[in-house]
Amino acid sequence: MAGNTFGTLFKLTTYGESHGIAIGGIIDGCPAGLTLDMEAIQRDLDRRKPGQSKIVTQRKESDTVQFMSGIFEGVTTGTPIGFQIVNENQKSKDYSHIKDTYRPSHADKVYDDKYGVRDYRGGGRSSARETASRVVAGAIAKQLLSSFKINAFTSSVGDLFIDKPYQDLDFNEIENNAVRCPDSAFAKAFEEKIMQVRKAGDTIGGTITCVIQNVPSGLGEPVFDKLHADLAKAMLSINAVKGFEYGSGFCGAKMKGSDHNDLYNEDGTTQTNLSGGIQGGISNGMDIYFRVAFKPVATLIQNQETINSAGEKVMMQGKGRHDPCVVPRAVPIVEAMAALVMADHFIRARTTRL
Amino acid sequence: MAGNTFGTLFKLTTYGESHGIAIGGIIDGCPAGLTLDMEAIQRDLDRRKPGQSKIVTQRKESDTVQFMSGIFEGVTTGTPIGFQIVNENQKSKDYSHIKDTYRPSHADKVYDDKYGVRDYRGGGRSSARETASRVVAGAIAKQLLSSFKINAFTSSVGDLFIDKPYQDLDFNEIENNAVRCPDSAFAKAFEEKIMQVRKAGDTIGGTITCVIQNVPSGLGEPVFDKLHADLAKAMLSINAVKGFEYGSGFCGAKMKGSDHNDLYNEDGTTQTNLSGGIQGGISNGMDIYFRVAFKPVATLIQNQETINSAGEKVMMQGKGRHDPCVVPRAVPIVEAMAALVMADHFIRARTTRL
Amino acid sequence: MAGNTFGTLFKLTTYGESHGIAIGGIIDGCPAGLTLDMEAIQRDLDRRKPGQSKIVTQRKESDTVQFMSGIFEGVTTGTPIGFQIVNENQKSKDYSHIKDTYRPSHADKVYDDKYGVRDYRGGGRSSARETASRVVAGAIAKQLLSSFKINAFTSSVGDLFIDKPYQDLDFNEIENNAVRCPDSAFAKAFEEKIMQVRKAGDTIGGTITCVIQNVPSGLGEPVFDKLHADLAKAMLSINAVKGFEYGSGFCGAKMKGSDHNDLYNEDGTTQTNLSGGIQGGISNGMDIYFRVAFKPVATLIQNQETINSAGEKVMMQGKGRHDPCVVPRAVPIVEAMAALVMADHFIRARTTRL
Amino acid sequence: MAGNTFGTLFKLTTYGESHGIAIGGIIDGCPAGLTLDMEAIQRDLDRRKPGQSKIVTQRKESDTVQFMSGIFEGVTTGTPIGFQIVNENQKSKDYSHIKDTYRPSHADKVYDDKYGVRDYRGGGRSSARETASRVVAGAIAKQLLSSFKINAFTSSVGDLFIDKPYQDLDFNEIENNAVRCPDSAFAKAFEEKIMQVRKAGDTIGGTITCVIQNVPSGLGEPVFDKLHADLAKAMLSINAVKGFEYGSGFCGAKMKGSDHNDLYNEDGTTQTNLSGGIQGGISNGMDIYFRVAFKPVATLIQNQETINSAGEKVMMQGKGRHDPCVVPRAVPIVEAMAALVMADHFIRARTTRL
Repeated sequence: MAGNTFGTLFKLTTYGESHGIAIGGIIDGCPAGLTLDMEAIQRDLDRRKPGQSKIVTQRKESDTVQFMSGIFEGVTTGTPIGFQIVNENQKSKDYSHIKDTYRPSHADKVYDDKYGVRDYRGGGRSSARETASRVVAGAIAKQLLSSFKINAFTSSVGDLFIDKPYQDLDFNEIENNAVRCPDSAFAKAFEEKIMQVRKAGDTIGGTITCVIQNVPSGLGEPVFDKLHADLAKAMLSINAVKGFEYGSGFCGAKMKGSDHNDLYNEDGTTQTNLSGGIQGGISNGMDIYFRVAFKPVATLIQNQETINSAGEKVMMQGKGRHDPCVVPRAVPIVEAMAALVMADHFIRARTTRL
Repeated sequence: MAGNTFGTLFKLTTYGESHGIAIGGIIDGCPAGLTLDMEAIQRDLDRRKPGQSKIVTQRKESDTVQFMSGIFEGVTTGTPIGFQIVNENQKSKDYSHIKDTYRPSHADKVYDDKYGVRDYRGGGRSSARETASRVVAGAIAKQLLSSFKINAFTSSVGDLFIDKPYQDLDFNEIENNAVRCPDSAFAKAFEEKIMQVRKAGDTIGGTITCVIQNVPSGLGEPVFDKLHADLAKAMLSINAVKGFEYGSGFCGAKMKGSDHNDLYNEDGTTQTNLSGGIQGGISNGMDIYFRVAFKPVATLIQNQETINSAGEKVMMQGKGRHDPCVVPRAVPIVEAMAALVMADHFIRARTTRL
Repeated sequence: MAGNTFGTLFKLTTYGESHGIAIGGIIDGCPAGLTLDMEAIQRDLDRRKPGQSKIVTQRKESDTVQFMSGIFEGVTTGTPIGFQIVNENQKSKDYSHIKDTYRPSHADKVYDDKYGVRDYRGGGRSSARETASRVVAGAIAKQLLSSFKINAFTSSVGDLFIDKPYQDLDFNEIENNAVRCPDSAFAKAFEEKIMQVRKAGDTIGGTITCVIQNVPSGLGEPVFDKLHADLAKAMLSINAVKGFEYGSGFCGAKMKGSDHNDLYNEDGTTQTNLSGGIQGGISNGMDIYFRVAFKPVATLIQNQETINSAGEKVMMQGKGRHDPCVVPRAVPIVEAMAALVMADHFIRARTTRL
Repeated sequence: MAGNTFGTLFKLTTYGESHGIAIGGIIDGCPAGLTLDMEAIQRDLDRRKPGQSKIVTQRKESDTVQFMSGIFEGVTTGTPIGFQIVNENQKSKDYSHIKDTYRPSHADKVYDDKYGVRDYRGGGRSSARETASRVVAGAIAKQLLSSFKINAFTSSVGDLFIDKPYQDLDFNEIENNAVRCPDSAFAKAFEEKIMQVRKAGDTIGGTITCVIQNVPSGLGEPVFDKLHADLAKAMLSINAVKGFEYGSGFCGAKMKGSDHNDLYNEDGTTQTNLSGGIQGGISNGMDIYFRVAFKPVATLIQNQETINSAGEKVMMQGKGRHDPCVVPRAVPIVEAMAALVMADHFIRARTTRL
């Protein structure tokens, strides 16, 4: 049970190391009859790919997806959708400096502990490159959920955060700036912060907020597979994520019940939405919103002392082309994982009643 | 895929509504040959049961577990462990007042939306009573993981929080106070806070911190089933939970990489542990720690305006015997779910290498 | 992955040993809104229970099922259905004679090999008593599939077999005789054969044929989870089953394509049905029919030489109240497993198209 | 739950249609540290590929497998193994004649019934071309089980069958003839039979026997996932299979218990092996053997009357390059599926005991 599959009825299985021949996956359970917009899929991949702006890694990968099966004349056939993204960058680098060296706060050492062997080139399977496959599947999930609106955006960088409720933000603004922020003033501040950190050879963390709108009531299962439990798992499965909260989140833990309860309107909507669109694990038709915390990227352009596989202290040279802040490129990944969860529960909900 | 099973190799499936004949479950995948301490199982159930102190609900349930199978002469046989807890309280109450009324911030309405039918007595399947079955399974998982130390405790109530690192706390203190706090001064403050809220007919939220020690390196799967992703799902699947963070958590999102990275000692341990004992989804042998946010209980001893199933405004009378703060009784539930995740990955790790 | 669950969307998990407190299970995934005929469930259990006629074991068990959850006012709620059957016979016998002795062609030795420990009383988990739980779940599945007709019957005992196509048999006759045969002449011959074998302290094998009618086209998945592959697994999972064939079966392996192909009528039905109602793993609307082979019961009323756990030769006394032929009591079990497979694919088919 | 995954801990997920860009799959759960013999994998593919002898289809495909991930410097890393086989034949043919025509005893019509859309080229997903991916995964499973011996062979063609016990056959002979028969005299008779059928533009069925030796005691799970139940499902999931029997099989259903029971030797082996190496679903260390029935290929070189999607009678021209008998090429597929089942249970057995 090596855990390379996500979902139960809309399932994504991925394969691939960062510097192997290709990464890719199989989507099993996409219903038949969905006419796919192929450009929209590639567009989401382009939002995630390296080299798209000055605040992300300058590595070059075209990240072009190729579909092998499951689509006939532009329409899904109900059979598994196999796809791949060739690793163009695969032979361009020398990774011997990390072959036996354990980078701090990376997975190098635990891979050796666990498997006794690892593909050390560029992080191998532990590289966030794997998330490109998730973006492909998520883009198809979005099309399955065509009436839903799923918007993620950068809501903080370091200690700078958007001090407005999401309802006051313009989601159309998100793609208008490199940092993917729906407020142009904050976008500018975030970008400056990232540039400043980059110049120092350092990295910085941040948060992404995601809002899912137009969700029907009734999605999610009431006990273990609560809708928000599956969203939490999806988000924590993204590289560098340290936390998840939905609705009132950690702030809700400070509140009293009389302030926290969402009172009903006569039409079944609620006057407030501290619940975050989910009650007892099941969507209630209100907006679903949640927040995801990303740690700063562990790869620095500074020297760091570390150890090698023999347990000796060694100096690790800071070099390479890495993201100073992972958050802008993680926005489409958060959307993709949210879409995978929602698509899965959308299909599961068909099996609930007689 | 109704989602009443948790785990992959150490699996718990639960059944039961709060006011049906019994709740219970089946544990499938507990290895053969484990000598069980039956009293320790009941002890964890007693920590969760109602009526144990003045700061929890005064409802009475003995919550005695009965095992049906899978244990022979005190030893697990490798076959499924069936168990049940009879609902003693099942007929004692009149629930007609909530039959057609949707309680604010409860799951009543979404159950009707989803299923078209519901057992309305005391919340039915959405009641936290279901978590008693999790405590049973978690207590067995703890015994499987006998060398691990799993300690959860109340770390905040409302806006009061323990302002010390967990290393400075005495876990032996946890069971010495009703609020399950490892610091007697904070315990007193927390209890007073809860009593004050209860007197006002109100409720209050809080957080639980959990620390897992003596974990070997190599548990967890690197992509979707990251150890912390499964912990997040486990925690968010508990009633009333709104957030999860591990290691540096949301604070980590404010930090720079040069401050956040955990540098290695020569023995492979790290000088700091902002990673929270997990790298790339895999345990690294350091302490695993995480924090869980609980919203205030939605059932108040105050009248609230709400709607009925006909969409009419009705007044809901505040009554009943409910918890003013769910956190003290949730401590063994957090431990149980943590133990279930760790047991699952403990067994999964056996399948990793040749 | 101990394998005590059957099905994917309509799932049955069972627990219980033959001489523990109870056996039982959890059905997860039964859609909400199904009004259950409780007497029909018990009726199927009664068809399976011991002591019902002179040609089956004379052991006494009332085999009364008790439901714990998932049903409210006679209607399924969509939550898991927990149920149990108390083992009334549990303490009445002395099993010390098989504690250390391995009965020939039983699972005693392999349990010790596999688990290192076993509940030796009456076969423990390996006893066919476990199938009572399957009959409960199958009876609910049948009600979900109310428009389907599922009929199993004894088609051979030893070398006596019904030499007529199933279309010439009267399924209403099945419950009119102890052997569950839809032809009264063959019923008489089968019964005589079984009585004769019983008198000799011996046992005998037989086959069951099952016919499923009124199945819509489109059930089953085309690759690994072919409808007939799942039926095969279901049948082979029943104690004592040695073989499965559907449609033309092993005879089909002797035929030419020009004789075997089922030509179409204009309405999409086929002129012949050697395919057995399934093409490429998917139902085509024609009758599904298959045949299941049962070996003779291994417990004899004759002495047999065998070994004990120390590897010494010992004489095993023939005694006890066992079935001379398992087939009559297995008829409802075959139907139950067929119903579980069909219910699972019936629900899965809802997820196929947009 | 579209069912394109086989296995629980050693899992294969496949994708691909016969005339798409490629077929392929992902193996998840292969333990780390296995040094792979790549040539042995290709050798099994070559045993299955078209055009290898005069008694199989003369279609040309090189069927070269390419691995994308999960293998580093020739050793498995524990991460998923992605692989593909490019469809070289993909554009060479005109399939408009079957676009709207339902071939008798093919899956064309049920695909339309189920999905509402299908890739009609050469059978699409229903083509046995998919089994090439199984052979790849099975070849890796065989290497994981290096101490096991898995031999399948053609045991009958039409009404000709090998009338010797498998113990009297020389498995080294299997690959010495085109029909894959371990007896040269029968091989000759089988080949002649197939050539004769081919000349008549017809096809013929047959059976494959598989013997698995050197299996340790204790593999298999006792209830639903019995070792033979999983073997049955595996075999019935292969295209054209109509039946499965193991050990005494359908003959066992005619026997008496006193003849059927396998008596023990003092070393725990049995004097006879009518059980087929499995007791209660668990391997007992004796040889596992089973037999699989294949129907005659449905594609004929004769004209057949059939219907189109409008329900009109049409004449289907017999043409194309198809197998007169599927059995010789199915031998490596049977071995592959057997290896997948055994590998899965081999890994599962690691989780059984404390």
